[in-house]
Amino acid sequence: MKILIVVAHPKIDDSSSQAFFKAGAKLVENATWHPLVEPFDVREERELLMAADRVILQFPLYWYQAPSILPKWLNEVWSVDFASHLKGKQLAVVLTLGRQLQDYQPGAAVGVTLSDLLSPYVALANTCEMTWVPPLVVAQFARMTEPQRQSLLIRYQQFLSLADTHFQTISQWWVDALRKHPEAGQLAETLQERQDHLESLRQAVKEAQDDE
Amino acid sequence: MKILIVVAHPKIDDSSSQAFFKAGAKLVENATWHPLVEPFDVREERELLMAADRVILQFPLYWYQAPSILPKWLNEVWSVDFASHLKGKQLAVVLTLGRQLQDYQPGAAVGVTLSDLLSPYVALANTCEMTWVPPLVVAQFARMTEPQRQSLLIRYQQFLSLADTHFQTISQWWVDALRKHPEAGQLAETLQERQDHLESLRQAVKEAQDDE
Repeated sequence: MKILIVVAHPKIDDSSSQAFFKAGAKLVENATWHPLVEPFDVREERELLMAADRVILQFPLYWYQAPSILPKWLNEVWSVDFASHLKGKQLAVVLTLGRQLQDYQPGAAVGVTLSDLLSPYVALANTCEMTWVPPLVVAQFARMTEPQRQSLLIRYQQFLSLADTHFQTISQWWVDALRKHPEAGQLAETLQERQDHLESLRQAVKEAQDDE
Repeated sequence: MKILIVVAHPKIDDSSSQAFFKAGAKLVENATWHPLVEPFDVREERELLMAADRVILQFPLYWYQAPSILPKWLNEVWSVDFASHLKGKQLAVVLTLGRQLQDYQPGAAVGVTLSDLLSPYVALANTCEMTWVPPLVVAQFARMTEPQRQSLLIRYQQFLSLADTHFQTISQWWVDALRKHPEAGQLAETLQERQDHLESLRQAVKEAQDDE
């Protein structure tokens, strides 16, 4: 699966979270890191989009909207005619927030939900007949502890590349990731054995249910 | 009440709906027509905002968001520090749509609601402690008949200037509007008489209820 990460951030070089994500994306096969820079080469942008299976829009919220470069890019690059080429691809958002998550609910400081605020992108997926993938939301990156960042790195890499979030898919991701590190080879084998064992148990349960 | 109409439209001179609204706004006392043009004079923009009692953001949707000049203006002009000066003012949106209204619901072509899509502005009002006024939504202006446009003109002028949409407020607006036209003076008087009569009936009903 080819992954295009479209990063909309006006000061990307000053952003510690984007630097973190960039390093994480480098380790993901077939992932292209693509920060938006004006002026756009419309032809080139469209080629990148057409080559991708999963398009990820990655941005912070400024006054509850994406930075203005993102709607500008959408208007210049995603013409209604061109959008037909995107049919069947996946669309996902990686959202970074300066505020804490609990502010985004009725009665709290912001008073609207993140689902509300992301609705333009859901609508975009709907009308382009793309498949909407539930977003990855990262709140207050700057305040994260080192263990939290390690966990986020894994979640981000899985978010970029995994087809779904089923237990089996995530287990297999770990087996593949561990096999790349010779010193963790034994761990990968143990994990694979456990996973095979779990799978045979799952089959046995299924057969027992079918017999009823 | 001072009204600031902030118009975000990349081709405002080609827009028949914006030309229509501009002509309508000219007839409204204390309304300032203010199309956004880059680069922004931040100081001037802030003075306009501070002088207003009601700030109206007026824009079409492009891929379900305001044209990029609006988030850009928000980011340059409405700093978090400045936003404290806007506390207590009213915030409203005039939205123009190329699509029909019924597309904006779950299961329809767009699949999200206009309340969802306007949520960034509701959140803006919430965090700036401004009063959110329910929006005026104008769908498919280009297809409107002449009587529909006449009706829209009245609704737009009332939307700009009225404190609320109570029956009495709207009646009084008509009386005031008709009095400006000498040839309609008699009509204004009749309307005023009827309204006075209605008011006395309303009082009588209220007194009867209080007696119970």
